[in-house]
Amino acid sequence: MIDLYTWTTPNGRKVSIMLEEVGLPYTVHPVDISNGKQFEPAFLKISPNNRIPAIVDQDGEGGPVSVFESGAILVYLAEKTGRFLPASGAERAKVLEWLMWQMSGIGPMMGQASHFANSAPEQIPYAIDRYISESGRLIGILDKQLADNAFVAGEYSIADMAIYPWVSVGFELIRGAKPEIVGDGKNTERWLKAMADRPGVAAGMAIPPAQN
Amino acid sequence: MIDLYTWTTPNGRKVSIMLEEVGLPYTVHPVDISNGKQFEPAFLKISPNNRIPAIVDQDGEGGPVSVFESGAILVYLAEKTGRFLPASGAERAKVLEWLMWQMSGIGPMMGQASHFANSAPEQIPYAIDRYISESGRLIGILDKQLADNAFVAGEYSIADMAIYPWVSVGFELIRGAKPEIVGDGKNTERWLKAMADRPGVAAGMAIPPAQN
Repeated sequence: MIDLYTWTTPNGRKVSIMLEEVGLPYTVHPVDISNGKQFEPAFLKISPNNRIPAIVDQDGEGGPVSVFESGAILVYLAEKTGRFLPASGAERAKVLEWLMWQMSGIGPMMGQASHFANSAPEQIPYAIDRYISESGRLIGILDKQLADNAFVAGEYSIADMAIYPWVSVGFELIRGAKPEIVGDGKNTERWLKAMADRPGVAAGMAIPPAQN
Repeated sequence: MIDLYTWTTPNGRKVSIMLEEVGLPYTVHPVDISNGKQFEPAFLKISPNNRIPAIVDQDGEGGPVSVFESGAILVYLAEKTGRFLPASGAERAKVLEWLMWQMSGIGPMMGQASHFANSAPEQIPYAIDRYISESGRLIGILDKQLADNAFVAGEYSIADMAIYPWVSVGFELIRGAKPEIVGDGKNTERWLKAMADRPGVAAGMAIPPAQN
């Protein structure tokens, strides 16, 4: 059994998608980050950076294994199950490079765009434009990659699962704001639809259910 | 032989440190990002996100393997050599989670702090404080982790190599600006010294040499 500590955010959904795709049994523990639940001592023992998602694999090698950081959890689950991450060679490198590209680029930059557009106490045009533009540039890179590949690293992989929860929420808004940077985004549109049509993706995106 | 495309930046130095540590032969190709060399078509074929570092392993499995994103390159080289990344279990998960923590947190946030403090066309106090504070918070997390661990994931690993080039340049400045967030940073100081004393780290940090 895997314990999943998560919330209704893109980083959390990466992991619920993967758990649905591989069919491992898991228990959802919602961590309400709008109420500071990520700072409780029991959670900090699992996730010292006080961020969701985190997992505890009760059936880990040699005993329970806890993992934080969505990208590390995806690699852990892929290696545990032997799925969605090739075992070696160029195919493995390709999945890892696009996973890292998501972790270091799409996630932080779209996160900052959202902060300055929606949450910051003042509207700062320079910062809003900086992060919307960089998010647009990254989506343009994704679109180019998807021109020659059905999925971002060729075959469907944990890289797609990492990118989808972020791009599915931000794509229309960013393309609308920066068409000159994103381009027409046709390949991304096709990929978003292919992703949404996967039962595992649809199920994972609903965990935990949106709060009202 | 490994071709390393790099520049005088923290992300580039992660990889030269690893190459020095494992002793694989490599050729340095400086990519002068201050002169737009990262946009040349030959480089984009290796690194479609037009960022350094990138490598081409001429002796890859089944032929040359190219890899971009510093985090993916570190994992690739660790798996090629069987060093600095445990093969399985909780020890492996720990290295990967701290590596991802660097990729998604320390790198992007210290990068944004540097941008708003040094490079942005206007001084925006809210943005400067946001990123210096978040960098300080992350260094505080690192310091706490290093209280119980000689290196970030216990044994010396690619996670240390990923974190060091960023924290070694920013630590004093950020602790000076935000002592109330960072704390005294004594564990980080000890770790910085242990890292600097490693011949592989010292050699890797000098590649390519600083430009004048």
